[in-house]
Amino acid sequence: MPVVEEDVPGRAERDFGALDKVRVVEALARVLPVGALMYEAEDLRPYECDGLSAYRALPLAVALPTTEEQVVAVLQTCFELGVPVVARGAGTGLSGGALPHAQGVLLSLARFNRILHLDPHARTAVVQPGVRNLAISEAAAPHGLYYAPDPSSQIACTIGGNVAENSGGVHCLKYGLTVHNLLRVRGVTIEGDIVEFGSHALDAPGYDLLALVTGSEGMLAVITEATVKLTPRPQFAQCVLAAFDDVVRAGEAVARIIGAGIIPAGLEMMDQPATAAVEEFVHAGYPLDAKAILLCESDGTPEEVEEEIGRVRAVLAGSGATGIRVSRDEAERLKFWAGRKAAFPAAGRLSPDYYCMDGTIPRKRLGEMLAAIQDMETRHGLRCINVFHAGDGNLHPLILFDANLPGELERAEAFGAEILELSVALGGTITGEHGVGIEKIDQMCSQFGAAERTQFFRVKEAFDPAGLLNPGKAIPTLHRCAEYGRMVVHAGQPSHPDLPRF
Amino acid sequence: MPVVEEDVPGRAERDFGALDKVRVVEALARVLPVGALMYEAEDLRPYECDGLSAYRALPLAVALPTTEEQVVAVLQTCFELGVPVVARGAGTGLSGGALPHAQGVLLSLARFNRILHLDPHARTAVVQPGVRNLAISEAAAPHGLYYAPDPSSQIACTIGGNVAENSGGVHCLKYGLTVHNLLRVRGVTIEGDIVEFGSHALDAPGYDLLALVTGSEGMLAVITEATVKLTPRPQFAQCVLAAFDDVVRAGEAVARIIGAGIIPAGLEMMDQPATAAVEEFVHAGYPLDAKAILLCESDGTPEEVEEEIGRVRAVLAGSGATGIRVSRDEAERLKFWAGRKAAFPAAGRLSPDYYCMDGTIPRKRLGEMLAAIQDMETRHGLRCINVFHAGDGNLHPLILFDANLPGELERAEAFGAEILELSVALGGTITGEHGVGIEKIDQMCSQFGAAERTQFFRVKEAFDPAGLLNPGKAIPTLHRCAEYGRMVVHAGQPSHPDLPRF
Repeated sequence: MPVVEEDVPGRAERDFGALDKVRVVEALARVLPVGALMYEAEDLRPYECDGLSAYRALPLAVALPTTEEQVVAVLQTCFELGVPVVARGAGTGLSGGALPHAQGVLLSLARFNRILHLDPHARTAVVQPGVRNLAISEAAAPHGLYYAPDPSSQIACTIGGNVAENSGGVHCLKYGLTVHNLLRVRGVTIEGDIVEFGSHALDAPGYDLLALVTGSEGMLAVITEATVKLTPRPQFAQCVLAAFDDVVRAGEAVARIIGAGIIPAGLEMMDQPATAAVEEFVHAGYPLDAKAILLCESDGTPEEVEEEIGRVRAVLAGSGATGIRVSRDEAERLKFWAGRKAAFPAAGRLSPDYYCMDGTIPRKRLGEMLAAIQDMETRHGLRCINVFHAGDGNLHPLILFDANLPGELERAEAFGAEILELSVALGGTITGEHGVGIEKIDQMCSQFGAAERTQFFRVKEAFDPAGLLNPGKAIPTLHRCAEYGRMVVHAGQPSHPDLPRF
Repeated sequence: MPVVEEDVPGRAERDFGALDKVRVVEALARVLPVGALMYEAEDLRPYECDGLSAYRALPLAVALPTTEEQVVAVLQTCFELGVPVVARGAGTGLSGGALPHAQGVLLSLARFNRILHLDPHARTAVVQPGVRNLAISEAAAPHGLYYAPDPSSQIACTIGGNVAENSGGVHCLKYGLTVHNLLRVRGVTIEGDIVEFGSHALDAPGYDLLALVTGSEGMLAVITEATVKLTPRPQFAQCVLAAFDDVVRAGEAVARIIGAGIIPAGLEMMDQPATAAVEEFVHAGYPLDAKAILLCESDGTPEEVEEEIGRVRAVLAGSGATGIRVSRDEAERLKFWAGRKAAFPAAGRLSPDYYCMDGTIPRKRLGEMLAAIQDMETRHGLRCINVFHAGDGNLHPLILFDANLPGELERAEAFGAEILELSVALGGTITGEHGVGIEKIDQMCSQFGAAERTQFFRVKEAFDPAGLLNPGKAIPTLHRCAEYGRMVVHAGQPSHPDLPRF
């Protein structure tokens, strides 16, 4: 990684100065109706953090517009006053992407909660950004359709946040991330221009600004409408539960399933500490003596599922599985998944706090990563339970800690950073589906070189030259990376042979 | 469409002045080895056009680098001298994207023709941009893998051009466009910086510059390397040939197949003039009395194919098909496709010249578009045969004309422009897979409003502030759109009720 000593003027992390809160509130009050603007500390408190609650800040004010015209007016007002704006959906994000700016306005899209149009023939839905992920599937259900991306938070999270973070889920291996299930977005730039990217057709001419805005963490435009694809609900699904007496072997089985040309609807891995933690209160029927288990789901017509499950069983048997069970009915299939879905609450039962990481590595290196995490547990003196979207190499290690014990939060963060650094070193990335936000901004310095980061700045400037949309998130300044490089050098020798030596 | 009267300074179509050709050639000769630079008119002639041969221009020089260092040096040299650069692969593009700039350098990537790495386990290949599309599949074949996007030109076209145009093909309905089969690109900016976008993992953090560069028609960076996904070769495939006595009904059957949740490997439609033209010399076995035929392919395991073909037959029977045949063996399947694939040569047999259009419309409006094209044939006095990637609403009308007859080329272009304008009016787009290039640049003014076009400029400036990479392509200037708006107004009343009234 090239360490850049000199920063580009205007690209340092910025102080927006002592903004006159009264002036900002008065200007916003002129463009928003009664009840759509909050500025008293007790009203702001619910917005002080998102799902990454280790970071908190109170914004100057919270705007709750109900129309696109009001969004335009809020953004124009903030642009004129030079006030940062952080857009927010349901605030379920895990990387701090919706953390308010202490000198800025928090723009909640919660009141944009209508499904505007649902076309079962074209299999599309036009929705406002504050519509909950699951609400789209509920509305589409009478037509045998659903919205495929299924983040764990899908009961609560909203589509605007899904677009901002390019959210995935258990089934994204087969059905894709948000960007693959999105046709068009309508949004507003910081200058108040209404823009539409993408189209209802297969491909749109011009630069692919739809893909660019998707996953841009609210830094390029504020979304006011999205057209999503709907997917036919599979007729039938079955789940295979396989046990392994070795985590490396389980990782290899994952690579072999994919290598055999099978694309399961879901392919998840849990290590023994994770199965032990969930089995205790969910009773999913997991084999507690297994060092790791795999859950491999097949969906489609009954014929397709039968054929695919047969092939999955054959690969698993040839990969050293010590036990293979296929769900006998829908109740058992749901029980298998109930365990996996309870991993986060189970971590919460084991420990006062946990820290969920989100790296991605090549599938064939899953075993190696698990061994390295075991070593990190010893060195950092913290336990970690592992649940993986193994099919796409997406790790969700849950680091257990107690924030009330001095130093534990810092150790958990150092542990997490080491997992991310190793993900990059193993040829992977620092995020699978949770975004960078504030949480992983330092690791962006390891992930990308100066040329790529410069290009990120330039693209940001192409949308938001004043740098007012969600400043300080996702894209680190060159200065920050230079500081991070120095810090990591001072921290000494890398602990894994693949880790970079600065 | 807002007609913008005033242009933004620096964004008008530019005259690069009377560049000193000798100076440019001398500067390039200093950074390129012997045999990698051509500047005599007879050497430049083969590069004067791409597949859109109605537009031709001789560049100042053609550079044929063999290493990335040479690409960097050529771009840095052109940047310093302020010389436009047009990158070119095999030149099979149909929208003039690789048309040289008369005051610029043509940068051919033809010598970047090596497959650098093929990983059957991870199912990826790292290739240079001059590798032919089909060569990747040939190299992957021993592992039971192939590269899925299959433009008709796949014997000749190269992966760099595929990335630049985001190419599709008959099978992209099921297997996606180039962007869906691409993991990472490495490229060089006009300033000579080497950048890498994307990663080998599922998702990459930061803005999705991989998707942004894909389909950007060589205007943002010059690609020097790409990592593509490989797909397991399906075990088995079968094709259904269905006849209809009405084109509208055939269009409805397409919508019903998709509406039933079936995603065929290919779903093509041909009208009677098209089947008549090909049957004459290919003898594909098409029913000549049918007003339209559909070809619907299913691939997968034999069980999956059998199940899907059964569902397709049922939908077709319920949609008024007058005849349904299923390929009995691989020879017959290939014969069904041979007819479809011969549509372009068949047009060439019928007429000295033909003009292939590439609009996309919502599937449910296929019948309406066909009726409108019949009307246009009368008004423009030209015949048109229609082959459609019907499954994704992508039209390829082939307008037949004779460039040697005065006024026929102009009438063909007007006919084509009317198809594109109607595609936009029906809720579609002006390109499915061939790009905008020089051909459809005016219709970009109908497709996008001023806010979107301004954002395109800004993104372009974020990569290429001097506007040297492929100038004059894909993104029209505001001035050009203003002129086009005035011209269309003067042309009188729109011929279709959905067409915009300026």
